[in-house]
Amino acid sequence: MTTTSPRTLGTARGPAHPTDTASVRLQPIGLGESRITGGFWAQRQRANGAAAIPLGRRRLDEAGNLENLRIAAGVSAGEVVGPIFADSDVYKWLEAAAWEYARNPSNELLAVQREVTAVVAAAQADDGYLNSVVQVRHRDRGRYADLPWSHEHYCAGHLIQAAVAQVRCTGDTALLDVAVKLADHLAATFGEDRRHDVDGHPVIETALVELYRETGEVRHLELARYFVEARGHGLIAAYGQEPTYFSDRVPVREATTVEGHAVRAVYLAAGAADVAAELGDGELLGALRRQFDDMIATKTYVTGGLGSRWDRESFGDPYELPTDRAYAETCAAIGGVQWAWRMLLATGDALYADAIERMLFNGFLGGISLAGAEFFYVNPLQLRGGAHADENRSPAHGRRGWFDCACCPPNVMRTLASLDGYVATRDARGVQLHQYAPGTVTSGDIELVVETEYPWDGLVRVRVVAAPGRFALSLRVPGWAGGATVTAGGTTQEVRPGYARLEQDWTPGDVVELRLPMDVRTTVAHPRVDAVRGCVAVERGPLVYAAEQADHTAPVDDLHIDPAAPAASEHRPDLLGGVTVVTTRGRTDADGELDLTLVPYYAWANRGAGPMRVWIPTI
Amino acid sequence: MTTTSPRTLGTARGPAHPTDTASVRLQPIGLGESRITGGFWAQRQRANGAAAIPLGRRRLDEAGNLENLRIAAGVSAGEVVGPIFADSDVYKWLEAAAWEYARNPSNELLAVQREVTAVVAAAQADDGYLNSVVQVRHRDRGRYADLPWSHEHYCAGHLIQAAVAQVRCTGDTALLDVAVKLADHLAATFGEDRRHDVDGHPVIETALVELYRETGEVRHLELARYFVEARGHGLIAAYGQEPTYFSDRVPVREATTVEGHAVRAVYLAAGAADVAAELGDGELLGALRRQFDDMIATKTYVTGGLGSRWDRESFGDPYELPTDRAYAETCAAIGGVQWAWRMLLATGDALYADAIERMLFNGFLGGISLAGAEFFYVNPLQLRGGAHADENRSPAHGRRGWFDCACCPPNVMRTLASLDGYVATRDARGVQLHQYAPGTVTSGDIELVVETEYPWDGLVRVRVVAAPGRFALSLRVPGWAGGATVTAGGTTQEVRPGYARLEQDWTPGDVVELRLPMDVRTTVAHPRVDAVRGCVAVERGPLVYAAEQADHTAPVDDLHIDPAAPAASEHRPDLLGGVTVVTTRGRTDADGELDLTLVPYYAWANRGAGPMRVWIPTI
Repeated sequence: MTTTSPRTLGTARGPAHPTDTASVRLQPIGLGESRITGGFWAQRQRANGAAAIPLGRRRLDEAGNLENLRIAAGVSAGEVVGPIFADSDVYKWLEAAAWEYARNPSNELLAVQREVTAVVAAAQADDGYLNSVVQVRHRDRGRYADLPWSHEHYCAGHLIQAAVAQVRCTGDTALLDVAVKLADHLAATFGEDRRHDVDGHPVIETALVELYRETGEVRHLELARYFVEARGHGLIAAYGQEPTYFSDRVPVREATTVEGHAVRAVYLAAGAADVAAELGDGELLGALRRQFDDMIATKTYVTGGLGSRWDRESFGDPYELPTDRAYAETCAAIGGVQWAWRMLLATGDALYADAIERMLFNGFLGGISLAGAEFFYVNPLQLRGGAHADENRSPAHGRRGWFDCACCPPNVMRTLASLDGYVATRDARGVQLHQYAPGTVTSGDIELVVETEYPWDGLVRVRVVAAPGRFALSLRVPGWAGGATVTAGGTTQEVRPGYARLEQDWTPGDVVELRLPMDVRTTVAHPRVDAVRGCVAVERGPLVYAAEQADHTAPVDDLHIDPAAPAASEHRPDLLGGVTVVTTRGRTDADGELDLTLVPYYAWANRGAGPMRVWIPTI
Repeated sequence: MTTTSPRTLGTARGPAHPTDTASVRLQPIGLGESRITGGFWAQRQRANGAAAIPLGRRRLDEAGNLENLRIAAGVSAGEVVGPIFADSDVYKWLEAAAWEYARNPSNELLAVQREVTAVVAAAQADDGYLNSVVQVRHRDRGRYADLPWSHEHYCAGHLIQAAVAQVRCTGDTALLDVAVKLADHLAATFGEDRRHDVDGHPVIETALVELYRETGEVRHLELARYFVEARGHGLIAAYGQEPTYFSDRVPVREATTVEGHAVRAVYLAAGAADVAAELGDGELLGALRRQFDDMIATKTYVTGGLGSRWDRESFGDPYELPTDRAYAETCAAIGGVQWAWRMLLATGDALYADAIERMLFNGFLGGISLAGAEFFYVNPLQLRGGAHADENRSPAHGRRGWFDCACCPPNVMRTLASLDGYVATRDARGVQLHQYAPGTVTSGDIELVVETEYPWDGLVRVRVVAAPGRFALSLRVPGWAGGATVTAGGTTQEVRPGYARLEQDWTPGDVVELRLPMDVRTTVAHPRVDAVRGCVAVERGPLVYAAEQADHTAPVDDLHIDPAAPAASEHRPDLLGGVTVVTTRGRTDADGELDLTLVPYYAWANRGAGPMRVWIPTI
């Protein structure tokens, strides 16, 4: 067994990589050309590779997902187990393993991918169909009999995404062969002049576009376009289902907001953005801009969390953003990042990179433990004393190793493993740095090294290692970073939020320093967000902070903060894997004035799942 | 066909009527001995009799409930429809019709009860079993195969309650015969030395105790006691279900709070209170006091609404009381009244009568339209502009004629029709008036007439029409009524919340006047109720008020109230069936200072379901 040479990876493509003809402002950096080599995210990625991905492999056996596929293949006997979308956990894990292999190749990881891939391939029907639960449990009912709930396209989508990742990261085509055969079966079955129908859970859309980007087969792009356009025209309602939940109430290009099941909504929007980019569909892109803007303005938590309702795991009405019952599913933050990434590529607008940063550092990262092998499904902004864990997903349990519905854990794994791809982009004039982490970025003749202690420290040093002469280096200045400065060639200038663009002749050895102010900020919500009236959130850099019971003797449920008191920050390498804590003054009615110690939200519940709050009352 | 003479009703018993040997402080007034003859509630009862109950009869046909029973009886063919608890709608309607008949006898209403009763009786199996959905849809699976979800005891409970009401109100024993046969079948099937199991949805407990009160058969009480005591010992968990939802996590006598599905929890507590009262079980009653106190202190809305979560229709954690996503199911308010009533009888404590008043005037009454034939399932304390109705129960629809799960409408009907029974009680020393409405109260030789414009006006005039000489007349002074006075025999004294007890020699013609101050009050929540920080609720008398868009040009979503501004009240006979409105001053950021007009919460959404809020920001 040979390990694919890392050299070849440098020419492959990372996740969501538009074709060269796509109507995008920015192009991703090739796989391996953007690398996170140390610091904050590398620490998380190491835990992902060392703990989460091996755990995931075991769970696929323990929870029966792989056995389901063997039963469908006819090599095992018995009944399939788990939810109807059980196969998708296998595919998300395969995708995670592929990106992890690109980050950190090993023969062992390649071997296990090939082993799992073989199990998948064996289960595929001769005509390309593949869904173990339908093939076995619902063999009498047959295929596509209940598309609103059957997740048949959803599972296919995750398989396709895994296949694209696998071929890009390992060069193996085994899973791609399965994916193409399945996509061709779908294309032969569904469409305007074939069966007119959509799956209840989007993801096939992004998957098919990415498959098109890999294969160049226009039929894959066309089917993605069809699935996007077919929504919002009553197909789900024809099954007697209320369409809001399924993102099927309004056509994508007419929608003005996101609604219904949050993960479904953002996965669909991400797919629509892919279609818009590949087809140069400005109207569709404009609709997605409106929806994204509205989501950020009225339906997004300060953590970047999406989806405020446990009931149906859905977006709420505008400004309906409860803290205690925030759902903010980990998968929704991931889908939010995917959508924002595609919008960033299409538009070059820094607001999307800002959104990615907020979602990654807070709403997403809170979904995984520091040790790397426990997960939150639900990410509230408050846990009360005496909160009762009444079910599997309850945050009062603390993070858990797996769930009855295990969508989140492997979704976290694939996202952390592919994170390097979200750091930078390129265009004809140069390179853009969107997220800050120590590492290297290469684009053609341009080679950069980034040094930073971000997010603990606001200094980002970019060294030019190789340069073709003149090019534009763009550094994102986050929306929260008023007063940021850039120093280059001995000159320091203040730069405004957006991109600090330095187009000049560069020589190897040149250094640019971006300084982002790391003052502690208190944030007040829009007055219509009733849930947090009279409260502030504390932020520092890209991190949202939280008061946790572990740091207080007074009940966190009763804490008040003095927003006028000075706030200090201190890096504590010993605490929670190394965090900068914020200290300030507050009070409770019973205890009087006291010190508040706040920790980054993402790190909460690593010392037990006690009372916690992000929004702290001032009154 | 003859109409039972109203004379005989005077000796019959109303709802939840403890036996003479029960360990209760207060005894209910006999059916027909406590009558609401005019005013606020009579208006609602007339709409109930004229619009709701006839509507209910039609819906039982249209929704298929009666046809289900005919299919089970073998007189119709086909498949049963609707939820597994479909039969219970029929029984709740029958109970409503019985109480309505006692209030307002008519041959037509008697005939239709007999007709529906005959359909029910025909469906009963020879051994007493009765559940049309199980008998037909689940005939292969058989009886009691999935008690956590099958609602077989639940439906039996509602049948028994209807039967007791029917015999008390009409003298007909046809349904009672069915009920006794069914109860005997249950007693022969379940128990400590028989099958050890409980239903997922309580109600059988109150029903069996009331059946015992009617029949005197101790086996009915004993089975109720068994069902109460059997909970909280793992029976539901043995089915693989999480027990919190089913009120089966903690034994009733050990529980310190209410949790899980709100209606299940309060129905069970009501049944346990009945058992405690009949058996003189002080320990059980003490546990129920603790639970009720905790519910009022930490899990009850200002409207008396119960249950803060849409997800599983359940109670939330302590102080988790969101306004916009308040569930506050109409049935939960009804169950809360039933529980409070039993606690009131057992203890004589005015706090339970206060709770009944709050629940009835606000959380319950909002569940039905002024016209009487539309219902809310869910009773939020806020509706936002742009709220999207994404399902059947969404308040954004406004009240609706029926629901997929139609538990609430017939529950409202039976409660309104039996409301006369909640007005007064008696004990060895005299009579207690708990709720104020124009009417008559008779207890032995005591005969009183009550005159009042309550809740619009705070004057309650009680005329003694007949008196045995010395007795104690107790008038409830609500907890909100600081500064209330009682005038009797030319003397006026201030009376404190609780009961103003006047024990003296009474002569026909004596008049007592209770004056409850009707000042407009602003109420602030406990500081742990994060959802309403910086807000006040406006109350006047027993009524909670709301700002509704129909009365404002500025967006209700943006309203602020000035809690220091004077508030005025004005009776508007033309508005919403006649209401007293409250006017005060407030502002919005965009509009500046403005007048606020507040209407009683129960009357909201009778002019379209627009933005509304009970808790109004002050900051």
